[in-house]
Amino acid sequence: MSSSTVDPADPVFRLHVGGKMAVASTVPLTSREDLSLAYTPGVARVCEAIAADPALADDYTWVSHTVAVVTDGSAVLGLGNIGPRAALPVMEGKAVLFKQFAGVDAVPICLDTQDVDEIVAVVKALAPSFGGINLEDISAPRCFEVERRLDEALPIPVFHDDQHGTAIVVLAALRNAATLLNRKLGDLRVAVSGAGAAGVAVTKMLVAGGVNPDQVVVCDSKGIIGRHRELTGTKAELAETTNAEGRQGDITEALRGADVLIGVSGGQIPEEAVAGMATGGIVFALANPTPEVHPEVAARHVAVVATGRSDYPNQINNVLAFPGVFRGALDAGATRITEGMKVAAADAIAGVVAESLTAEAIVPSPLDPRVAPAVAEAVAEAARRDGVARR
Amino acid sequence: MSSSTVDPADPVFRLHVGGKMAVASTVPLTSREDLSLAYTPGVARVCEAIAADPALADDYTWVSHTVAVVTDGSAVLGLGNIGPRAALPVMEGKAVLFKQFAGVDAVPICLDTQDVDEIVAVVKALAPSFGGINLEDISAPRCFEVERRLDEALPIPVFHDDQHGTAIVVLAALRNAATLLNRKLGDLRVAVSGAGAAGVAVTKMLVAGGVNPDQVVVCDSKGIIGRHRELTGTKAELAETTNAEGRQGDITEALRGADVLIGVSGGQIPEEAVAGMATGGIVFALANPTPEVHPEVAARHVAVVATGRSDYPNQINNVLAFPGVFRGALDAGATRITEGMKVAAADAIAGVVAESLTAEAIVPSPLDPRVAPAVAEAVAEAARRDGVARR
Repeated sequence: MSSSTVDPADPVFRLHVGGKMAVASTVPLTSREDLSLAYTPGVARVCEAIAADPALADDYTWVSHTVAVVTDGSAVLGLGNIGPRAALPVMEGKAVLFKQFAGVDAVPICLDTQDVDEIVAVVKALAPSFGGINLEDISAPRCFEVERRLDEALPIPVFHDDQHGTAIVVLAALRNAATLLNRKLGDLRVAVSGAGAAGVAVTKMLVAGGVNPDQVVVCDSKGIIGRHRELTGTKAELAETTNAEGRQGDITEALRGADVLIGVSGGQIPEEAVAGMATGGIVFALANPTPEVHPEVAARHVAVVATGRSDYPNQINNVLAFPGVFRGALDAGATRITEGMKVAAADAIAGVVAESLTAEAIVPSPLDPRVAPAVAEAVAEAARRDGVARR
Repeated sequence: MSSSTVDPADPVFRLHVGGKMAVASTVPLTSREDLSLAYTPGVARVCEAIAADPALADDYTWVSHTVAVVTDGSAVLGLGNIGPRAALPVMEGKAVLFKQFAGVDAVPICLDTQDVDEIVAVVKALAPSFGGINLEDISAPRCFEVERRLDEALPIPVFHDDQHGTAIVVLAALRNAATLLNRKLGDLRVAVSGAGAAGVAVTKMLVAGGVNPDQVVVCDSKGIIGRHRELTGTKAELAETTNAEGRQGDITEALRGADVLIGVSGGQIPEEAVAGMATGGIVFALANPTPEVHPEVAARHVAVVATGRSDYPNQINNVLAFPGVFRGALDAGATRITEGMKVAAADAIAGVVAESLTAEAIVPSPLDPRVAPAVAEAVAEAARRDGVARR
């Protein structure tokens, strides 16, 4: 059977019949009195109050607990550019995870355009309906511009989860791995394999969290990024800010003597390259379902291994981050999501298992109910500290 | 206290704290197995199937039971152009009524633009996420162009409720009033006061339902519409298609000898004008909260009176139409909403109380649970008859 055929007996298809989500009323609607309060004529008084003071929308509508999960379907999971309709099951999944883990009411918005200007215009236009914008599965490098322009234009949090969700959980995991191995983040030599949305964001987040950018080497499909290459945009920035040694070559060269490998590329990394890492190293091979290096192979050469998979220890899963990040941002009425809020989220995730660290538990389980509340509290506090909180 | 002040003790404000709606997951999310079915890696199989056959989105996502309630906040209730944020309580109310009466999952989308081209572009872009588009509270004449362009562009139902919801319920009520008075629709002389969104749609709907357009006279704020006036757009069309007698003057002249007054203007109509109607007449004074003529005043001169208010008999309330119209359209996979589907909806609403007609019960109560299923069934049948059904 081809991978694109429907198998009605497959539990995945059975679960998806009719989709995975619904809308619910939170008010009674069974009497004329109910209707006259929730709808006309009563509702007009709430409308007039908000017209006079728009901030009241936070109190008297659902915006303060609502997020739009917006995609253009251009980079869905590892499936690539499958378009908005085929992306919807992922966005519904994301929405129900928002609800399950953080009580955030999320609405999937799959856009029938992949033009940056149009995406920005559409999201700006529908923003009054939502308390935050979670961008999802938009391909690089377009995702960087979409996020930057929306972040500048909108008075609500904008967060591209493929970048920052991954980056937050990677920083959390690396903090705990370093603690476990008695190393300092600032001393680690880090190789990042992949310079797409996740690779770029992971690199920035690790630096924000204490990694020395001089000791970071990033590879894309053409090899190590550095001043020796002709680059533009985000990759040109990476060439300026990382790889102080001026290394050139492929991933094997990038990994020579490295303490940490972070794979966010999907490409395969040969065992010999991993064997060239320093002793007592750390490998996060996050491609899903096929990690850049098999975790059992990596374990022959390093001390701590994490993947994106649920069937191996140390699952680096964005669900540890995004529900609590938005819950905290919404609770604080944050106007944006700062670097400080992301670092606080990573620290909170790391903190949940800090007392029980082992090489097979450097991050909490994605189902750990302690995570989202801890992240939310830390993010809200950071928002207030960074001066972006409205409450 | 000013009408735009918040009174926290007001039951309306108390009800609206935190808004009126939420999102719910319809699948379990408590084990790793659950996550692997509803989200990664399992969800990828559903995405691939939809990428190969987009029609499968109907089966495996929530689109087949989902409607966007879209407004630009330009004509909200009787409050006018109060903008998208202040419109949100009305859209949330609409959404929860969709759910309550017809199990339709509706999402409020309040747009931060009132430009026709932008509204059309935004709604087209977000359409893949929804099974239908309910346009709401968009001012005339822009609403006509927005609806026409979206109806042409999109493969899903587009329905401007202020036009067609009102028109459907008016036709239902007029059918029953005519039956009660032993009159035929085709014989009635009808005066419509108001040539905005509702007035135009009511006029078209009545004609589609059997009223003779030659015997319809429509008034706007400047008086009777006819060939004697310089008009453009929709009003020019009305001048061509109605008022065969070539009447000129104000509402008093329009009402002279009329059997039916339908007020959808908000302007006041003097008792003397109503007194000039034919005996045994019908008045629907639908402005809310202040009808064009007070129902008790109208009752001195005519046989049947209806209003938009819940505290008088015969409430002409859109909630009798829109939940069942969309439920039926979605059930049939209708690609658009035809005149036949609207007439079928009106007949179904009228039919619910056909056996128990009195002058004080020409339409069902807005809370009558028989209405939405009857409308849905009639609309789905009409969609199949009109060749716009996909299932």
